[in-house]
Amino acid sequence: MPLKLYLAGPEVFLRNAREILDAKAALTRSYDFEPICPGDIFIEPAPTRHEFGLKISAVDESMMNSADGVIANLTPFRGMAADTGTAFELGYICAQGKLVAAYTNITDNHFARVASYYDGQIAPDETGRKRGPDGTALEDFEMIDNLMLHGGVARRAGHIAIHRAAFDALYTDLTGFEDCLKYLATRI
Amino acid sequence: MPLKLYLAGPEVFLRNAREILDAKAALTRSYDFEPICPGDIFIEPAPTRHEFGLKISAVDESMMNSADGVIANLTPFRGMAADTGTAFELGYICAQGKLVAAYTNITDNHFARVASYYDGQIAPDETGRKRGPDGTALEDFEMIDNLMLHGGVARRAGHIAIHRAAFDALYTDLTGFEDCLKYLATRI
Repeated sequence: MPLKLYLAGPEVFLRNAREILDAKAALTRSYDFEPICPGDIFIEPAPTRHEFGLKISAVDESMMNSADGVIANLTPFRGMAADTGTAFELGYICAQGKLVAAYTNITDNHFARVASYYDGQIAPDETGRKRGPDGTALEDFEMIDNLMLHGGVARRAGHIAIHRAAFDALYTDLTGFEDCLKYLATRI
Repeated sequence: MPLKLYLAGPEVFLRNAREILDAKAALTRSYDFEPICPGDIFIEPAPTRHEFGLKISAVDESMMNSADGVIANLTPFRGMAADTGTAFELGYICAQGKLVAAYTNITDNHFARVASYYDGQIAPDETGRKRGPDGTALEDFEMIDNLMLHGGVARRAGHIAIHRAAFDALYTDLTGFEDCLKYLATRI
């Protein structure tokens, strides 16, 4: 029985989501894993949009529960940080003690991206901690996102792939994704 | 022994983080829970910033492991979505099957905030799914953030408090936080 990998990431929102998820699934199988993709299972209609959303949440959690690990696409989505749904899913699977790997298609790290969000208006406070113009502190740990995400993967000896994708291939370039597959194939 | 609640949220980044965390901790104790706050434990120095970040990740995870539940502050942070660290932590504690509650200090829901991110340039595709100008689909489930976060709490019969805080009290207004405490006090 091949190990099952849950493929977390914001590509479910793309217009060509099916095509990308199929490509990720095929690549996953080529490394002898079984892919589990959110979006693969038909969700029954529900009386309200809200209840439909809850059904998707239930199906996605049951998929994670059946998985042996995750590859999380942490490429920033609609802003300077990872998709929050993907962050939730990564935390969920870290808590389950399963195989973890993550990738990003942007090479600027978390600190660089937050500094850019603040147009570079970063200054150290009296303790040396770097802060933005709104007074909030910036994590500067050479990590790809908030330390809980990067640390959660790295501390589990999971793999973090960092790759610079072309701007028009930010959510479709699978170089980092395949790098994670290669790594996980050595772990089993 | 009082139940322990992990207090997740981006207020750890505020200039007056200590003050806010102390206020949250005092309020938590007033409802007979024991607060566990990231930032409460001294983290030993490490040879590199990166290793220091990993140490914080380890300490925060051990705090979550010792907790009986979480109250997650999902108020959007540096953009239109929740702090990714908080999203990770909420997923982590949902996977552990513990008590969960969440609050937001912004009443615009996820759909409204993403629509605003796209300056209202939202149109239905051929299947009726609403998409932004970049082609990505918007979740429209009357939820406060991505469905995994809202659904993860709601499906566990956790509480979601929605409160409109003043702009200058976005991360310090504790009305929604106290609402979660009141709710959790009825669950035990």
